[in-house]
Amino acid sequence: MKLLKEFILTKGKIINGKTLKVDSFLNHQVDPMLIMEIGKEFKKRFDGLGINKILTIEASGIAIGLVTAAAFNVPLVFAKKKVPSTMDDFYLSKIFSFTKNEEYSVCIGKEFLNSNDKILIVDDFLATGNAIKGLIKIVKEARAEVIGVGIVISKSFQSGEQTLKDEKLKVESLASIKQLENGKVCFTD
Amino acid sequence: MKLLKEFILTKGKIINGKTLKVDSFLNHQVDPMLIMEIGKEFKKRFDGLGINKILTIEASGIAIGLVTAAAFNVPLVFAKKKVPSTMDDFYLSKIFSFTKNEEYSVCIGKEFLNSNDKILIVDDFLATGNAIKGLIKIVKEARAEVIGVGIVISKSFQSGEQTLKDEKLKVESLASIKQLENGKVCFTD
Repeated sequence: MKLLKEFILTKGKIINGKTLKVDSFLNHQVDPMLIMEIGKEFKKRFDGLGINKILTIEASGIAIGLVTAAAFNVPLVFAKKKVPSTMDDFYLSKIFSFTKNEEYSVCIGKEFLNSNDKILIVDDFLATGNAIKGLIKIVKEARAEVIGVGIVISKSFQSGEQTLKDEKLKVESLASIKQLENGKVCFTD
Repeated sequence: MKLLKEFILTKGKIINGKTLKVDSFLNHQVDPMLIMEIGKEFKKRFDGLGINKILTIEASGIAIGLVTAAAFNVPLVFAKKKVPSTMDDFYLSKIFSFTKNEEYSVCIGKEFLNSNDKILIVDDFLATGNAIKGLIKIVKEARAEVIGVGIVISKSFQSGEQTLKDEKLKVESLASIKQLENGKVCFTD
């Protein structure tokens, strides 16, 4: 996605060979125009596949999930990292974050996923893919179907994208990064 | 806001005299059509005041903040509840949550708030107002200006809305709840 790559090249900050900071337009300050275009782009790439629900994880996934849900005109469900006191029947999945070097849980109320659901999972980053795998586990538990995975920025030098593709999932990354060496972002295409 | 009140009346669940559960359309599953209308409504209510940035707190505020930012065509900034490892210069505010009976911190990178900013703060719920007050403290520290506070659902039987109005802030609640007694939602108007 050309517009996204321009944002990454002009506003992204390379912290080290593994970390790209995009907090000026994607996950702290958010550019609404760019995000809207991201939603439309996911619609284009997953159109006609019967998707009836968008799924993501709080917090950084929410803005992306919402615009995608708006583009498809279907509900968004975002997995929560803390079980709310008012939630009593839920699916739970444990996820290990390499970025934060800690395990956390995500939960989704059982009433919001069912066996008729055809799910598009979206998220801001894909590195090892652990967060996405945690969501897939929940979708399977609910006997719903994962139609695809839409990622804004994929680090193709880590294992996540390939692992998901190996499971025959349709994975679309709007910007796929090959390497972050020498202070330069190098895209795969 | 009529559409919002219809959603509350038909899909909201009263847990007790203080707690209204709206996780089927607002803060777990999200109805994108309703949320888009909420953004437009805030635009209408705060139009012409020079607002150049929308501010909210992760996670439930993000969807609301994004559609409001899109309606105003200005950036959204969402305060984070954990300091990211890549963030080194930030404002911090401590907030006590009565709902969760715990204190938490929120942070905003210093580069995303400055003295030229005219801020609209938005959030899903207003009860005691502690979260909003925490954000206002940060905005003042950055020498920016709070133009107003936009709330989706305000519990007017708690102190938050009045406290903010006492500080001469323009507060707009799209649905203001007077009481939740006897399993019924009673709006203030």
